[in-house]
Amino acid sequence: MAKEITPRTQDYAQWYNDLVLRAGLADYSAVRGCMIIKPYGFAIWERIRDALDGMFKETGHSNAYFPLFIPKSFFSREATHVDGFAKECAIVTHYRLRNGKDGGIEVDPEARLDEELIVRPTSETIIWNTYRDWIQSYRDLPLLINQWANVVRWEMRTRLFLRTTEFLWQEGHTAHATAEEAVEETRKMLEVYDRFAREWMSLPVIKGVKTEKERFAGAIDTYCIETLMQDGKALQAGTSHFLGQNFAKAFDVQFTGVDGEREFVWATSWGVSTRLMGALVMAHSDDDGLVLPPRLAPIQVTIIPIYKGSESQTALREAGARLEQELRSAGVRVQFDHDDNHRAGYKFAESELKGIPIRLALGMRDLEQGTIEVVRRDTREKMLMQQADLAPKIIHLLEAIQVNIYQKALDFRNENMHRADSWEEFERLLDRGGGFISAHWDGTSETEELIKERTKATIRCIPLDNPVESGHCILTGAPSRQRVLFARAY
Amino acid sequence: MAKEITPRTQDYAQWYNDLVLRAGLADYSAVRGCMIIKPYGFAIWERIRDALDGMFKETGHSNAYFPLFIPKSFFSREATHVDGFAKECAIVTHYRLRNGKDGGIEVDPEARLDEELIVRPTSETIIWNTYRDWIQSYRDLPLLINQWANVVRWEMRTRLFLRTTEFLWQEGHTAHATAEEAVEETRKMLEVYDRFAREWMSLPVIKGVKTEKERFAGAIDTYCIETLMQDGKALQAGTSHFLGQNFAKAFDVQFTGVDGEREFVWATSWGVSTRLMGALVMAHSDDDGLVLPPRLAPIQVTIIPIYKGSESQTALREAGARLEQELRSAGVRVQFDHDDNHRAGYKFAESELKGIPIRLALGMRDLEQGTIEVVRRDTREKMLMQQADLAPKIIHLLEAIQVNIYQKALDFRNENMHRADSWEEFERLLDRGGGFISAHWDGTSETEELIKERTKATIRCIPLDNPVESGHCILTGAPSRQRVLFARAY
Repeated sequence: MAKEITPRTQDYAQWYNDLVLRAGLADYSAVRGCMIIKPYGFAIWERIRDALDGMFKETGHSNAYFPLFIPKSFFSREATHVDGFAKECAIVTHYRLRNGKDGGIEVDPEARLDEELIVRPTSETIIWNTYRDWIQSYRDLPLLINQWANVVRWEMRTRLFLRTTEFLWQEGHTAHATAEEAVEETRKMLEVYDRFAREWMSLPVIKGVKTEKERFAGAIDTYCIETLMQDGKALQAGTSHFLGQNFAKAFDVQFTGVDGEREFVWATSWGVSTRLMGALVMAHSDDDGLVLPPRLAPIQVTIIPIYKGSESQTALREAGARLEQELRSAGVRVQFDHDDNHRAGYKFAESELKGIPIRLALGMRDLEQGTIEVVRRDTREKMLMQQADLAPKIIHLLEAIQVNIYQKALDFRNENMHRADSWEEFERLLDRGGGFISAHWDGTSETEELIKERTKATIRCIPLDNPVESGHCILTGAPSRQRVLFARAY
Repeated sequence: MAKEITPRTQDYAQWYNDLVLRAGLADYSAVRGCMIIKPYGFAIWERIRDALDGMFKETGHSNAYFPLFIPKSFFSREATHVDGFAKECAIVTHYRLRNGKDGGIEVDPEARLDEELIVRPTSETIIWNTYRDWIQSYRDLPLLINQWANVVRWEMRTRLFLRTTEFLWQEGHTAHATAEEAVEETRKMLEVYDRFAREWMSLPVIKGVKTEKERFAGAIDTYCIETLMQDGKALQAGTSHFLGQNFAKAFDVQFTGVDGEREFVWATSWGVSTRLMGALVMAHSDDDGLVLPPRLAPIQVTIIPIYKGSESQTALREAGARLEQELRSAGVRVQFDHDDNHRAGYKFAESELKGIPIRLALGMRDLEQGTIEVVRRDTREKMLMQQADLAPKIIHLLEAIQVNIYQKALDFRNENMHRADSWEEFERLLDRGGGFISAHWDGTSETEELIKERTKATIRCIPLDNPVESGHCILTGAPSRQRVLFARAY
């Protein structure tokens, strides 16, 4: 029997690692900080990708592909950007190996690049260098492009999906004629992320804007969606940046307006990554395995026959195959787990581990009575259904599960949404399970940094729907015009 | 007006470059040898990828994702492999930049990697290093995995899509319990490539096996599909390798068989890349632009209104929108090009450049008579159709175009399939337009190399359906048991 999963209450971080490995989502690789996304994990990621891709296309975006490598000098062009990104990155310095003396191979010192290449940590620079050639007049705007790609940020402490040196993501890069239009795009894509998180991942998120300290390097404003994990820590699930004219100025991208005047182009960029996989696992799963929202589950229904002797095998195989066919024709992603190498108990545990939303068990008695046993993964509720007209009932149940998982996460989030009006209260809340803490802050980066140093809590965002409210900073007592949202975070 | 496209007869290579740039398929980048795949080109690639991906899944394969970086030492493990691949590649030596004295940034010499990382040129080594942990017994086999990824091979002379330093591809990597099963897989995937080329790309291919000299570095046998371009040069469009136990031995991947014995695992790998985009362009297009097979065309039908005054605009917009809706509902990828900034003549030229398979033109007279003008991109044939019940007629025509493009390419290939029985004949055929030349060869790599040096022609493959036939090598006169297929190639 494979290693058990550590219970959440015992060690939440270990529970997460155990689960990711045991459920076949990802694996460690021979390259420090880089992970392998295993077939089951990748199947979930494909569903995330396809759903988002459809939403990007519906909102008028096209995909393209830009180079993996960025000339080093590009990073010096946008002053803030380089500090945020170019420091911890993979640097290509040579382009050839040769046979070494010891029978191995070595870097050929003759093959040194004149200018080093950076493996992209994000693509604003190479893309805006290209947009200079693509944009001449207002007729070329808006330019609405997205790319699905791998990126590399040299991380010292890595965790599967949550923080890896290489990860997969999408990065949208759009160009606009006016600031208003660019801001509108920035917020539109934040709405897309919000809707995706809610409708596909069953994740309630808080939409907000980052403080200056937490802003994307090179952005005027960074919008984000923040979500809460079961251990009370927050996780940033996606960001959308209004870049102003910073990159247009750095790469001299101007356009001729309707009035014939030359002006710098306005920019946005926005992205989500395989980090979403980590959020998905940590938000919904339990000590027995994954709990997947049906819309993202590679397998939505598993049919497990309860064999008793070889006669039952034939009959159950026929009945199971018929039900599988019926469900598949109705558009359900179903597997008939008829393999007789494993016992039903093992298969039950496996289906729980994999987070398959519905488990159907079929025994000889069911064949006689035209029934089937139905178990929901999310609530573990057990039901006996009539086999007749099964597909619509299953589809209805899948929808109910999708909604329930969302509601459960929303209830949890609401229960862990606190207000602190003093430093003592703030610290006490952090000690007692964390969650989001809404509190007054004096608006300075210094105070923000001090609070982080003392408590490890950071300002996750200033929520978009924040009311104006006079108050006093929980740390310094200085006047404040609104509350902001603090949390310890991934 | 944008730059004209160089005619094929004047300069085929220049025609190709002009077309790729003008049609918006790809662009040069600031990084030597790396290209940018533009939205229109990427939309075609997405269709290629999705079609292939569906075929891989139908044949039981799952996608996964392995790291971009491979430790240098991995390449020394399989002796042949390193010679073929690890020499010309991008090498990561450092992981941090720092601020330089001149205000720019420089590589931090303190941040040198203990072992250099190679940006993957292909992933056999990192994948087989992983398979060691994933495969214990025959129950874990076969392991059928594919990955869609970017790879880097440092090329000195590059051409958009055909040969670039970074390119996109898929690489299948499968593990089997027996040699027979692995060979079967190798050939099955060759069939998948053949079917894809035929049914989607309208490309007739020759299936064959490579000579030892042209074999993949580390393979026992390399199977390939070879196709002919309009200039009489061949292009290798895909390969499928039987790797024997080479990588299993290099990375110590063994399994326990049904009999309890430990044995090394048998392997295959197979891939196609964005090179297919180059093949697609060169096989079918003409001096006016792309000719795309309807199944891969991002836009299959364009509807162009012929405005005459503002009254006509309203009527034509209504009618065009109605037809667009009708075709879209029938599953046709259609655009209604109603923008009035450009004249119809410009739009006609653009639709030819983009290779849109069917162009519909709608004038006021058509509105009165219930007709529409239909022009095929492949034959330029012009027809007048009744608007009534248009969708099924258009769908039928798209199918006819798909078949016709294939037939045209097949006819061209057959006309350029020659036999040479003497050296003189061989050279004359190469001088007179190339094509595939079937000729006897003595079976030695030395002769193969000599022929290449003298003529630039290489052995593309030994066709799978090759008959046994006694003869004499065209160069050395030594005895030969079969003909092989020569061509100058991309």
